[in-house]
Amino acid sequence: MINPARVIERKRDGEELEGAELSAFMRAYHEGNVEDYHLAAFLMAVYFRGLSERELAALLEVMMGSGATVDLGADRARAVDKHSTGGVGDKISIALAPLAASLGVRVPMISGRGLGHTGGTLDKLEAIPGFRTDLDLDTFRRQVLELGCGLIGQTAQIAPLDRRLYALRDVTGTVESIPLISASIMSKKLAEGIGGLVLDVKRGGGAFLPELDRALELARTMVRLGAERDCRVVALLTAMDRPLGHAIGNALETEEAILTLSGEGPADVRELTVALAAEMAVLAGVADDLEDGRARATRALDDGSALDRMRRIVEAQGGNPCVLDDPGLLPAAPVRRVVESGRDGWVTAVDARALGRAAVALGAGRRRVQDDVDPAVGFHVTARPGQRLERGAPIATVYARSEADAQAGEDAVRSALRIGEARGAEPLPLISHRVDAAGVTELGAPAT
Amino acid sequence: MINPARVIERKRDGEELEGAELSAFMRAYHEGNVEDYHLAAFLMAVYFRGLSERELAALLEVMMGSGATVDLGADRARAVDKHSTGGVGDKISIALAPLAASLGVRVPMISGRGLGHTGGTLDKLEAIPGFRTDLDLDTFRRQVLELGCGLIGQTAQIAPLDRRLYALRDVTGTVESIPLISASIMSKKLAEGIGGLVLDVKRGGGAFLPELDRALELARTMVRLGAERDCRVVALLTAMDRPLGHAIGNALETEEAILTLSGEGPADVRELTVALAAEMAVLAGVADDLEDGRARATRALDDGSALDRMRRIVEAQGGNPCVLDDPGLLPAAPVRRVVESGRDGWVTAVDARALGRAAVALGAGRRRVQDDVDPAVGFHVTARPGQRLERGAPIATVYARSEADAQAGEDAVRSALRIGEARGAEPLPLISHRVDAAGVTELGAPAT
Repeated sequence: MINPARVIERKRDGEELEGAELSAFMRAYHEGNVEDYHLAAFLMAVYFRGLSERELAALLEVMMGSGATVDLGADRARAVDKHSTGGVGDKISIALAPLAASLGVRVPMISGRGLGHTGGTLDKLEAIPGFRTDLDLDTFRRQVLELGCGLIGQTAQIAPLDRRLYALRDVTGTVESIPLISASIMSKKLAEGIGGLVLDVKRGGGAFLPELDRALELARTMVRLGAERDCRVVALLTAMDRPLGHAIGNALETEEAILTLSGEGPADVRELTVALAAEMAVLAGVADDLEDGRARATRALDDGSALDRMRRIVEAQGGNPCVLDDPGLLPAAPVRRVVESGRDGWVTAVDARALGRAAVALGAGRRRVQDDVDPAVGFHVTARPGQRLERGAPIATVYARSEADAQAGEDAVRSALRIGEARGAEPLPLISHRVDAAGVTELGAPAT
Repeated sequence: MINPARVIERKRDGEELEGAELSAFMRAYHEGNVEDYHLAAFLMAVYFRGLSERELAALLEVMMGSGATVDLGADRARAVDKHSTGGVGDKISIALAPLAASLGVRVPMISGRGLGHTGGTLDKLEAIPGFRTDLDLDTFRRQVLELGCGLIGQTAQIAPLDRRLYALRDVTGTVESIPLISASIMSKKLAEGIGGLVLDVKRGGGAFLPELDRALELARTMVRLGAERDCRVVALLTAMDRPLGHAIGNALETEEAILTLSGEGPADVRELTVALAAEMAVLAGVADDLEDGRARATRALDDGSALDRMRRIVEAQGGNPCVLDDPGLLPAAPVRRVVESGRDGWVTAVDARALGRAAVALGAGRRRVQDDVDPAVGFHVTARPGQRLERGAPIATVYARSEADAQAGEDAVRSALRIGEARGAEPLPLISHRVDAAGVTELGAPAT
């Protein structure tokens, strides 16, 4: 019989728990014999004390074991997914998943909804009229084997203990813990039955873990956790000191992803999509090396094969495939307001977190779990750090439900953009570090 | 509308909460709008981050305000209580309260039950046949004004928020926090309507806060909290590296307290009782100084006036006053086993915490809140650190329900007593420091 107070005290005092002790505690919680208040105190103690490798492995085991695992059979070796730690304007998955599938990767992607100031892939996909993200696991598995990709949300079958823990962490100030974040992500991703995983670990002001050292620690932790479970993990550290691409908001981001799949789209979205696709292709063994992977990915974006794959996925999941040829079929906001620069100068900063919060305020995200999102609203921000602006030049468009919202959105854009006399500090490189089982490589060249 | 996650995060991150913010959070908890799991995470964050003076004052205010306060009117100035932070064999209150009352102090004492390895005054008093500790507050108040003393347990009327918080802390590993301990004690004690409070802060292995610096910090915190609320607080730091007195267990300790009231009892129990009574008498203004207070207290123990006062209190609260003349009327255990030393040597240590746990195992304390205690069982340990023993000399008596329990008790005594070839380290001085609003005084002479 587990004594929850004793487990909490040991963790609080920095002692290392036995794997079996931690497992018994978590299983007792899953079975209702340990209460939410026990877990809340325990999670806060973990926030301060961390988890040892042994403890983290035990936690991950229980979380995975709480639900089902997708079995892709012989295709496991080339099943590779991608996960982002979350940012503003991060619509990469929507183009990346079909792109990788078109290269021969199996992509069983289970995505989440928007969280805090960040958007979620699931909300963005649901902007496509008719698109269903609630396939049962068997249908999902068959689609991954047939089309190379399925795009669904976390079901009650996948790591249900993670769902409960996540909901509790969200309301008890215990989200920003590297071992808890790692276990949460890996429990869901490993349940997909993948043999490889590419992580996009954001850093900078718009990320959940803004500091480089914390982002690197998260990357290393997940690489190790994957290795312990026969899943090769590669992490890229990428810039979230400014939004990714121009679009922020569900339908707007889906539109930008469609542009990217059509060989267009903002340069940073295309560059990151290609880089992540190359990593996935190498992990899946469908490209010889990263250079080959990048070449294949670039070709698939430019020759229409990635877009064609997305068309088949959208059809298979009940969505209207015409949006891929005419993004004008996506939900549109009734009020559009172009925001112009009030002065000459250099853009020194574009505050991603502030714009993410402003998008939530427009209705693109949730304040409470039960809220619906408005697919149509958001921002299209063309101003980038380092850009020279003339007074009167357009810097952004606000998409809103009402004139009042549009005004609030305009105010938010103006305060999120800093414009100075001189060119400001260099923004973070789009992709600054690569982490795999061999260690950390600094890639370093500043973004252009 | 309070956002509990935000309050928790701010505390977690070491930010200072506004008094109004903390009050609103605690009140929302009291009213059921903030959940146990929120509090559990918050309390663990407080364990790691502490509370500022402003935060602690706000917490204490809400806890006090959650219940009733006893109004002693003009007698407030000479109403002085005593509180111990808890130890093994600490039966001081049972003799001290009537002793101080006999000197003219008003003692409205609200006591607690046993906790962990330590005993509780309430459980010990209830070993007296018929003694009722559940007087309503009005009866209690009248008895304090008439007899100078009432001895009851925490009612639902007194600081109910503390009761809920305490129960939650007990199961979430958040007991050992100086601000939380301070607020819990002071919320109950200030509700007694007292003008002065003497604290017995234990240190050493059998105490909840064994280290000197933590014990001093607790003492200083409570002196300050009292001063902020017009209650003069004096704290004595006393030894809990070994049990206090000989008796451990409810009826056994009550018997030892009766001996002390009769001018007998172990030297350390008598010395500490007199020292605390002198402090109470000075705070109440019924002694000129500590020397005068000690002289008056010693006289009251030796001339029967303290015992007589206890007789009137026991009668008023429904107990059988004959126990004061014949402690043989207290509940007695069916099995008594004398433990003899297995070797010649010096007693180098008597482990108070181990003996406290062993007493709980015999039935003297609780494993779960709903358990009953067995008043009759426990230990009478005569061996003291620094004592020279011959092989075969009696070191303790075990009082048990069964022969099996007696054997377990004997084993526990043997492992709690360390006997060496040489005289061991000096034990802690019985009373080592005195803390009041003027600061800390080291008293320092080692115990004899």
